[in-house]
Amino acid sequence: MRVLILGGDGYLGWPTALRFSARGHEVSVVDNFSRRRWVRDAGSGSLTPIADLEDRIDAWEQVSGKRIPSYVGAIEDGDFLDEVVAETRPEAVIHYGQQASAPYSMISRETAVETQYANTIGNLNLLFAMRDHVPDAHLVKLGTMGEYGQPNIDIEEGYIEIEHKGRKDNLPFPKLPGSLYHCAKVHDSTNIHFACRTWGLRATDLNQGVVYGIESDETAGDERLLTRFDYDELFGTVLNRFCLQAVIGHPLTVYGAGQQIRGFLNIRDTLACVELAVTNPAPVGEFRVFNQFTEHFSVMQLAGLVKGAAEHLGYTVEIQHYDNPRVEKEEHYYNPIHTKLLDLGLEPTLLGEELVESLLHTIERYKGNAIESSIDPRTRWNPAKSPAAQA
Amino acid sequence: MRVLILGGDGYLGWPTALRFSARGHEVSVVDNFSRRRWVRDAGSGSLTPIADLEDRIDAWEQVSGKRIPSYVGAIEDGDFLDEVVAETRPEAVIHYGQQASAPYSMISRETAVETQYANTIGNLNLLFAMRDHVPDAHLVKLGTMGEYGQPNIDIEEGYIEIEHKGRKDNLPFPKLPGSLYHCAKVHDSTNIHFACRTWGLRATDLNQGVVYGIESDETAGDERLLTRFDYDELFGTVLNRFCLQAVIGHPLTVYGAGQQIRGFLNIRDTLACVELAVTNPAPVGEFRVFNQFTEHFSVMQLAGLVKGAAEHLGYTVEIQHYDNPRVEKEEHYYNPIHTKLLDLGLEPTLLGEELVESLLHTIERYKGNAIESSIDPRTRWNPAKSPAAQA
Repeated sequence: MRVLILGGDGYLGWPTALRFSARGHEVSVVDNFSRRRWVRDAGSGSLTPIADLEDRIDAWEQVSGKRIPSYVGAIEDGDFLDEVVAETRPEAVIHYGQQASAPYSMISRETAVETQYANTIGNLNLLFAMRDHVPDAHLVKLGTMGEYGQPNIDIEEGYIEIEHKGRKDNLPFPKLPGSLYHCAKVHDSTNIHFACRTWGLRATDLNQGVVYGIESDETAGDERLLTRFDYDELFGTVLNRFCLQAVIGHPLTVYGAGQQIRGFLNIRDTLACVELAVTNPAPVGEFRVFNQFTEHFSVMQLAGLVKGAAEHLGYTVEIQHYDNPRVEKEEHYYNPIHTKLLDLGLEPTLLGEELVESLLHTIERYKGNAIESSIDPRTRWNPAKSPAAQA
Repeated sequence: MRVLILGGDGYLGWPTALRFSARGHEVSVVDNFSRRRWVRDAGSGSLTPIADLEDRIDAWEQVSGKRIPSYVGAIEDGDFLDEVVAETRPEAVIHYGQQASAPYSMISRETAVETQYANTIGNLNLLFAMRDHVPDAHLVKLGTMGEYGQPNIDIEEGYIEIEHKGRKDNLPFPKLPGSLYHCAKVHDSTNIHFACRTWGLRATDLNQGVVYGIESDETAGDERLLTRFDYDELFGTVLNRFCLQAVIGHPLTVYGAGQQIRGFLNIRDTLACVELAVTNPAPVGEFRVFNQFTEHFSVMQLAGLVKGAAEHLGYTVEIQHYDNPRVEKEEHYYNPIHTKLLDLGLEPTLLGEELVESLLHTIERYKGNAIESSIDPRTRWNPAKSPAAQA
């Protein structure tokens, strides 16, 4: 199958490209390296050493005999993306090409605008390019569980049947996004759903939980193929951050009491889910939504798990509660449904002490690269409520 | 009260500015004249002769003794808007400053991107400017009933209490926007709601029906104060279009069978509603939503009403059914609730033959300005389904 991956140089995009290439698909990737730039500009960097895209692609060719063509450019440039889609004629487009950090979107007006511009306009350009060149192709779009927020009812997969004053309809599940980044993901869902209803496109929105892990089957074992690993306050996800913190002796940065609950999944399961979505495409005209995570934990549960595993390896780990920089309910009901990917055959990689120990071992190898100054939370959702502003 | 009006040169923005100025408020307006440019570029123009903003402002000062300061610039320019808000320190911001045509947003990728960029980023800039300079001010934002689409249940005002699997929550009403313009309005609602939850801003989203009419108390009687009147396929609203068509002898352009139902209100009621919202502000931290229309009609009911009124004045009127350029249900359940503005004291101006006749008389005065080539529908929601594409 011809598969086009937007954001193919990123944390998930690169291992996804290798996975589909290894399975014999004709993969092309698009990236403009903005993630590398954002992380560098924030004074951080990938813990793992990551090769330049062209070097990675050469290394993969040496290892696998398969070539992955790359297109360097910004998808906010509609003419560029239009040409890429016209040239590659994908049967599936996997869209990771977005600014994906909630805290980055909350730093300032400029980063909020950058996030919503890059994400919303890039995605809108993609919808037009697919409509005009490959209207039967399947869009697999990365959404996030954070679009739903913390409603007081079970979170269904994308839609909810509402019975109201004696009538019924199956309508988009109401959203309470938790940051301006999450708002942008909601904008994408709104636009994609419209394109499916109006132009007959087909799409799957993968409302993903928080991803953790470093290695996939294809990236493990050859350092030239490693994907990036972020651990800073902006781009690191919570379990990855905690593991790095445990290894370098930094207190685990728990925000508030740590009773916030999130859905999680292993990076290997992200690849499996995306593959299940691509090989089982949505019907023509359908905007299909999957909740993509395998387990849910509170932040304190994760901190305890990392502390236990690290202490087992001989580390001393302190858990520190930071004034929560986010505006969110710290105690809340949380029961999101996530059966659709399981129904398609997903076999979850569940989180346990052994898995955390393996992650800690990989981090140990690269701990010399860690920039400790990028770890503590500085970005506040509401600057007026920061301890500094109140002092 | 200090009132800042974004889009203060527009169809609704200008008469709103005069209304608040006449009531003794300190009004400032912002505009970049993009509506004038879009209409001109589309080969059309306002039926009513409209003075330049500075000339209008001078005329108003002569008539009323009151000066309305103006700021010329694009709200997509965050620095510009930030400076205007810092300088004017509004207690209420009335935000009309958007690309407001559904068909314009559907012409091409370029006009879709222009619409979502101008509207979403402009509104996001406003939220930051208010947060940083006037966090207690009240944002009165123009939304649209078209955000809701055509669900099979009653449309509530912004929120719906959902009972699901034995639990309950009051959540944002699900949206099925009918164009990429309507999608952008949904994006705004999502962003504003987030800003209220996170920064404690206060806002009222006025989900407005289709506005008709030309004159308000302040603009009537002095031609220098007239507001614009659009009648072309892109920027004209349906009743205004039908009235112009009846006067110049063009068949009434009914899309499809004409059974689509919409909410409507008189331009005088728009001003009354906005005034009610401003003088009864939302509580701090609340994102309040009003459904702002007074009556609902099917397109064929309106066509019949205009035909009857025009024939009463001696015109011969033909109703012509055009292949529907939009993708929408042509027969559908429609029962939107709209009691909140009535509860605040709105006294509706109801549509009847007499009101249509008065509209026709005003149009007669300016019919020489009509550009007939701009009237027939050309913009198709799904170009692949156009008669030309199918031929």
